[in-house]
Amino acid sequence: MPTAQRISTVAVTPVAFRDLPLLNTVGVHEPFAIRAIVEVRTDEGLYGLGETYGDTEHLNRLRRAAQRITGTDVWDLNGLAREVRVSLEGDTGTGGHGMAGMVTNSSTADAVLSPFEVACLDIQGKATGLPVSSLLGGAVRDRVDYSAYLFYKWAGHPGAEPDEWGAALDPDGLVAQARRMVGEYGFSAIKVKGGVFEPDAEIAAIKALAAEFPGVPLRLDPNAAWTVDTSIRVGQELDGILEYLEDPTEGIEGMAEVARKVPMPLATNMCMVSFADLEPGIRAGSVSVVLSDHHFWGGLQRSRLLAGICDTFGMKLSMHSNSHLGISLAAMTHLASATPNLTYACDTHWPWKDASEDVVVPGALTFSDGAVVVPTTPGLGVELDRDRLGAQHEQYLRSGITDRDDTGYMKTIDPSYELVKPRW
Amino acid sequence: MPTAQRISTVAVTPVAFRDLPLLNTVGVHEPFAIRAIVEVRTDEGLYGLGETYGDTEHLNRLRRAAQRITGTDVWDLNGLAREVRVSLEGDTGTGGHGMAGMVTNSSTADAVLSPFEVACLDIQGKATGLPVSSLLGGAVRDRVDYSAYLFYKWAGHPGAEPDEWGAALDPDGLVAQARRMVGEYGFSAIKVKGGVFEPDAEIAAIKALAAEFPGVPLRLDPNAAWTVDTSIRVGQELDGILEYLEDPTEGIEGMAEVARKVPMPLATNMCMVSFADLEPGIRAGSVSVVLSDHHFWGGLQRSRLLAGICDTFGMKLSMHSNSHLGISLAAMTHLASATPNLTYACDTHWPWKDASEDVVVPGALTFSDGAVVVPTTPGLGVELDRDRLGAQHEQYLRSGITDRDDTGYMKTIDPSYELVKPRW
Repeated sequence: MPTAQRISTVAVTPVAFRDLPLLNTVGVHEPFAIRAIVEVRTDEGLYGLGETYGDTEHLNRLRRAAQRITGTDVWDLNGLAREVRVSLEGDTGTGGHGMAGMVTNSSTADAVLSPFEVACLDIQGKATGLPVSSLLGGAVRDRVDYSAYLFYKWAGHPGAEPDEWGAALDPDGLVAQARRMVGEYGFSAIKVKGGVFEPDAEIAAIKALAAEFPGVPLRLDPNAAWTVDTSIRVGQELDGILEYLEDPTEGIEGMAEVARKVPMPLATNMCMVSFADLEPGIRAGSVSVVLSDHHFWGGLQRSRLLAGICDTFGMKLSMHSNSHLGISLAAMTHLASATPNLTYACDTHWPWKDASEDVVVPGALTFSDGAVVVPTTPGLGVELDRDRLGAQHEQYLRSGITDRDDTGYMKTIDPSYELVKPRW
Repeated sequence: MPTAQRISTVAVTPVAFRDLPLLNTVGVHEPFAIRAIVEVRTDEGLYGLGETYGDTEHLNRLRRAAQRITGTDVWDLNGLAREVRVSLEGDTGTGGHGMAGMVTNSSTADAVLSPFEVACLDIQGKATGLPVSSLLGGAVRDRVDYSAYLFYKWAGHPGAEPDEWGAALDPDGLVAQARRMVGEYGFSAIKVKGGVFEPDAEIAAIKALAAEFPGVPLRLDPNAAWTVDTSIRVGQELDGILEYLEDPTEGIEGMAEVARKVPMPLATNMCMVSFADLEPGIRAGSVSVVLSDHHFWGGLQRSRLLAGICDTFGMKLSMHSNSHLGISLAAMTHLASATPNLTYACDTHWPWKDASEDVVVPGALTFSDGAVVVPTTPGLGVELDRDRLGAQHEQYLRSGITDRDDTGYMKTIDPSYELVKPRW
C-alpha cells in the first residue's frame, strides 16, 4: 500500500516551441508559443507532470505557489488549493495567463492551481497503478474525439520561408487546410477560428466547408469580434450549418441577446470562464454550451465540478484549447474520457506544433480517426523527456518571448493594425 | 500496487434497531427504525460497506441494482452509476426511501446508487491505504461537529415502560433533553424538530433553549407544517435567536416568499432534494442553506458536486440526518471533513439509538465536544460486526416493520390524528 506522498520538490520550467502565423481577431501567433512545465516530486520518489501558460506573471505566481506547496500530501487536493490561495495573497492582479486577451476574467487562483493539481493526480495514479481517468470516476469512453481546428494563416512568418501548411486566407485555403488535417488525423468535427475577415467572408468559408464535408459538425469562433446585430445576422445565415456558434459577441448580456435570436446553440470560453461567472451567465441564459478548459478552471477535479454544474443547469459541455504540448493533451484526454456529458469533440491545437518539440516521450498519445486513445497506464500515462525539456527551455531563453502578444507581433508586421472590439 | 478491484458479490441486509417515540408533524417514530446494510465484496477479497433506507420498495431496487453491478471495477464510479440506472429502467416509482413522506421528490436513482458508491469508496480506501476523506480531496478538519437533535417525545412507546429519555412535551422538557444531550456529547449547536405543537408553543421552546444556552446556535425544523404567513410570523418572532429556520413551509415558491420576509437564513432538505430541484430553487431564491444528505444525493462524490454548486451559487451547506447506524455516521464524517464549505454542525440522530445495536465494531467513531474524530484508517474506518448484523436482521424479521410509517403508527395510538399540511 502506498504511504502518504508528500511533495518534496517542484520544478517550473518555461519552454518554447515553434508556432505558425495563425490569425485571430487580436493579431497573429508569434514564431514561438510558450508554456510552463511543472514537475512535482515526492519524498517517496515519484514524480508528476503538469503543463500551463508560460507568461511572466503566471510564472512568478507558479514559483511562489511551488515554494508554498512543499510538504503537502498529493492526496490532499483541498490542502493544495488552500496553499495556492495563500501563496497568492496580496496579489490582486488578473490575467497574465498567456491567452492574448481572449480569456480575461478567469480565476487567477484556479489557473495557478491547475498544473499542480494535474501533477498530483499523475502521482496518485502512479502510486496506485491507476490511470488518471479512474481517479476521476472512470472512463466512460476509451477514445476521446477531437476537432480539426482550422485557422486563417499566412504562408509563413514574415521574413521566413513558407511553412509546411502554407497560406489559408479565403474559403479555398481553409477547405484545403481542412482536407489535409482531416486526412491526416481523421477528425470528424471542424472548428474555424474566425473574427479575422469581415463576416461575409467567414460565412462563405463555413459554407464552403459544409459543401466539402457534408454532415461533419462545424463550429465558428470569432472571439467576440462582432456586435450583437452582426452576431444575429451571421447566426441566422448559418442556420442548419453550424453545430454551435462560439463567442460571437462580448459579455453575458450580449451573448444572451444573441442566444434568443439565433437558431443554433451558443458556446463560450469568454463570457463564462470562472465559477464566479456561472450564476450570472446562467441567469441571463447566455449560452447552452460551455467550453471547459482545465488550465483555467482549476484542474481536473474542478473541471468535473463545472461538468456537473452544466449537467445540473441544462448546459452542454465542450472543451477549449490553447497551443499546448503532450502533458496537456494527456490531461485533457483523461478528463474528457471520465466526463459523461462531454459529448462534443474537444478542441486541440495539436496539429499545429512540430511533434519533435514535445517534452513527453513519444508514443503515449496517438490519434486515429480523430480521437486519442485514453492511456491506461498509471497516472497521465506520459513520461517526461528531460533532454527535450532542456532543449525547449533553451529555445525559450533564445526566443526572447516572455509574454504572449499576438497583437504586438501583428503591429510589428502591419503598423496600421488596430485592436478593435467589436470589429464588425 | 492494487490491481483492478471488481465487484464479485453484493449482500443487502435489512436490519432493525430500537427507536424511541420521537414526534414530528407526520406522526411519531415506530418502536423500530429500519435500515439496509450493503456489503460489497471484490474478487481481490476486499469488502466495503454502505448503509441506506430499509423500506420494501427501496430494498427491491437495491437488490436489482446489486445483481447488475457485479463485475464493475470499484474505481469506475461512472460505470456504477450507469449500471444502477439501467437496473431501474422501467421503474417509474418514486419514494419508498423511508423518510415518512418528509423527503418526497428525491432522485430514486441517486438514493439507490448511494450505498454502493460509499461501499466502493470504502474498498478504494482499503486498497490504497487511504481514508475515504483523502479520496474525496483531503480532510480540511480532523473533527466534524454535529448538532444536538432535539425531539418532542412521549415518555415511552404506548404500552411500554418509559424509556431512558422520558417525556419532552413542552419547553421545560426540551430544555431538560438538551441539557442531558449536550452534557453527554458536548454538542455546540442545537436543532429542534418542530411542527408538533402549535407555533407559539414551539417559539416558547426555542426561547427557553436560547435562555438556557446563550450563544449556542439554534435551529428549528417544522417540516413544512406552516403556511407562508405562519412561517413569516414565526421567523420574525425568532429574529436574532435562530441560526437558520429549516423548511417552515412547503415548496420552492412558498419558501422563496418566506425567505424575502424573515431575517434569518432559510434552510431546506425538502424543497431542494435532488439535482433537478437546484435550478428552479436557485432561480426562485428559496433558501440560503442546503442540507445535504449523501443518502439521497447519490453518495459522497455527488454530495461534493452539491457542495460545489452551493459554493458557486452563494448558498451555504449543512447536513441532514435520518435515524442511522455507524456506517452512515462514518460516511457523513468523511464527507463533512473533506467539504470545505460544510461549515455548520451536521445533524445526526446518533444519540437516539442504543449503541449496543450498531452493526459496526465499537470504538471507531467517538464523540467528544460534540464532534466525531475523522477516522484515519483505510476506507471508512469501520468494520462490520457480523454477529450484530445477524442479530439486527433477526430483529428486523421479528419487528414486522417493512416500511417506515410514522403516520400509521400515530393513528393506531390516536385514531383522531390526521395528516394535514400545512397544519398551522
